[in-house]
Amino acid sequence: MQKVGILGGGQLGRMLLQAAANYPVETYILENDDQCPAAHLCHHFFKGDIRDYDAVYAFGKGLDALTIEIENVNVDALETLEKEGVTVIPHPSVLRTIRNKAAQKKYYTDHQIPTAEYILTHNIQELSEQAHFFPAVHKIAEGGYDGRGVQIIENEQDVAKGFDAMSVLEKKVDVAREIAMMIAIDRSGAIAIYPAVQMVFDKTLNLLDFQLCPADIEEKTYWKAEAIALSAVKNFNSPGIFAVELFVTPGGEVLVNETAPRVHNSGHHTIEAHYSSQFDMVWRILLNYPLGSTDAILPSVMLNIIGKEGYSGEAVYEGLDEMLKIENAFFHLYGKRQTKAGRKMGHVTIISNEKADLLHKANKIKHGLSVIAKE
Amino acid sequence: MQKVGILGGGQLGRMLLQAAANYPVETYILENDDQCPAAHLCHHFFKGDIRDYDAVYAFGKGLDALTIEIENVNVDALETLEKEGVTVIPHPSVLRTIRNKAAQKKYYTDHQIPTAEYILTHNIQELSEQAHFFPAVHKIAEGGYDGRGVQIIENEQDVAKGFDAMSVLEKKVDVAREIAMMIAIDRSGAIAIYPAVQMVFDKTLNLLDFQLCPADIEEKTYWKAEAIALSAVKNFNSPGIFAVELFVTPGGEVLVNETAPRVHNSGHHTIEAHYSSQFDMVWRILLNYPLGSTDAILPSVMLNIIGKEGYSGEAVYEGLDEMLKIENAFFHLYGKRQTKAGRKMGHVTIISNEKADLLHKANKIKHGLSVIAKE
Repeated sequence: MQKVGILGGGQLGRMLLQAAANYPVETYILENDDQCPAAHLCHHFFKGDIRDYDAVYAFGKGLDALTIEIENVNVDALETLEKEGVTVIPHPSVLRTIRNKAAQKKYYTDHQIPTAEYILTHNIQELSEQAHFFPAVHKIAEGGYDGRGVQIIENEQDVAKGFDAMSVLEKKVDVAREIAMMIAIDRSGAIAIYPAVQMVFDKTLNLLDFQLCPADIEEKTYWKAEAIALSAVKNFNSPGIFAVELFVTPGGEVLVNETAPRVHNSGHHTIEAHYSSQFDMVWRILLNYPLGSTDAILPSVMLNIIGKEGYSGEAVYEGLDEMLKIENAFFHLYGKRQTKAGRKMGHVTIISNEKADLLHKANKIKHGLSVIAKE
Repeated sequence: MQKVGILGGGQLGRMLLQAAANYPVETYILENDDQCPAAHLCHHFFKGDIRDYDAVYAFGKGLDALTIEIENVNVDALETLEKEGVTVIPHPSVLRTIRNKAAQKKYYTDHQIPTAEYILTHNIQELSEQAHFFPAVHKIAEGGYDGRGVQIIENEQDVAKGFDAMSVLEKKVDVAREIAMMIAIDRSGAIAIYPAVQMVFDKTLNLLDFQLCPADIEEKTYWKAEAIALSAVKNFNSPGIFAVELFVTPGGEVLVNETAPRVHNSGHHTIEAHYSSQFDMVWRILLNYPLGSTDAILPSVMLNIIGKEGYSGEAVYEGLDEMLKIENAFFHLYGKRQTKAGRKMGHVTIISNEKADLLHKANKIKHGLSVIAKE
């Protein structure tokens, strides 16, 4: 059996390992938190910092293949491992480009991939000098994740919210639709594209509110989005699974927001709603099997289950019993013992041929299920 | 989080643990083989003999709930644990009845549940005296599993193949259809029934060849089968998931063949083809959540992947790459390192609205995939 390691042991690692159990593979996880969602689902758990050269190198040495569930890992160690013959998916060069938002933006413009206009700022002083560019979105170049590291700068009063570090200041785009496309590329270069999903965000937390598949967009916009997403991904020249987030403007223009070279929140619905899930697809790529089918079995909606504002402590899922009665809903609770405001604690996918049924059930769950803390 | 243990760590345990990762639960496995398919997917693995009183008692003490993936466990220990307040699903009394084929037969007749005519034999001598009852099927009362412990006695020449131990000698039934029904019962007595599946067996190995869902039987036979299966299960007065195997005679008579009080090969297709899988359902029962929906998303066919005759050693999946290209097929390989003739190494579920497509793909996989051993 091949030995395959994952850097990171959060919910993405957990779902990767659920899918791994369909294949003959020996699994390894490196993660600092030995109570993380993935810790108990692998053959070999190693406690260590995925950002540390020595920890990643020692972990990866001797494995057949390595992948990630988060970009914020030690890329130098992955480069050394790759040189020494370990298969690293995606290639470390992709991580170097993507994990730094300034480098990612440069990658898009270098390859004529449409993206929102931007300038770089290195500190708050430089940000304050760009008032002519407001309203804009300030994104810290390194270390942002899940809504952290992004600030909307409407006007000069908001400058103090910006980042006093290398950041991308992006012109605020008039967004009619926010969509995402998951794309898989195998080690021979074969490509499979999942149908686009459409997203609605929670403006306060910048977390997904719910996500509809397929996206409700015009056919010509769909083809444009697909061509742009493909171009965004193919120029990395790397196998892997990629999530490309795209903005569609009221005029039908399509812009790349950002790309993640890994399984992603935008692909969770594929577990039940598609023939080959994003997690299954990663194992096919890692184990050098052919790609799976990205076709939908049924249309779907996906919503995250997040820790309720004002609660922190041992997680309690209020309303879960009632929600579990919904016939066409699939619940995924990540087994995190502690909740806090905005923490991703799980997700639900609903599948149905009826869009009204999808939206009705999603709303029912959104209002009927709360993650609070034990008294 | 509740602490839940499973006795046994084979492929059923493996798939139970894949499903457990959708819920907040701390999982425990007791199994003698620490390289078993489920060993690495639980929070806590305990090496020990599930047939040993002390091992089972020590394992179960302190858990909130316990279940099984095989009947051949120490029932005395489970009874003690149940008395001491551990939730045991199914109730140990069910295991006592079911794991002994003579007691199981008596249970059916005691509750007027139609089953093939039978007599008990205690040794080969007694078997040889029952020639008037041949052709018959000789089933060892205790310890048979997966094709072991069952012999067809066509005539007196076959008597030597019989068992020199307490056994059931069952009149050979003229079988037009062999079907199975999975039934879930929660802790409040609520019941959910999966659609019946129809099975075709490999006559040599007595292993499932392939299984179609829904079963292709007349509606009135369907209702009769459902009523009989329900009666077979309800009289146990126990929560749990049950697989009831039934024979349909050419005249439309329905007879119970046997019942398993656990997840079962007959329910593997529910992972992808139904809203709540048999594995999901078990966690709902164990964690005291409402039952899930047993409805089919699409019709399905399931076939086992078994070790090829004549091969023994480190498993190699010949033809797997080609088979993984089949768009609507879901592969489950159990990660067993060693293959041998007839060993269950995995299964495949195919889903489609077209029965011809289901059967065509199932045959393609049956002939295109072989589990052989490394040279």
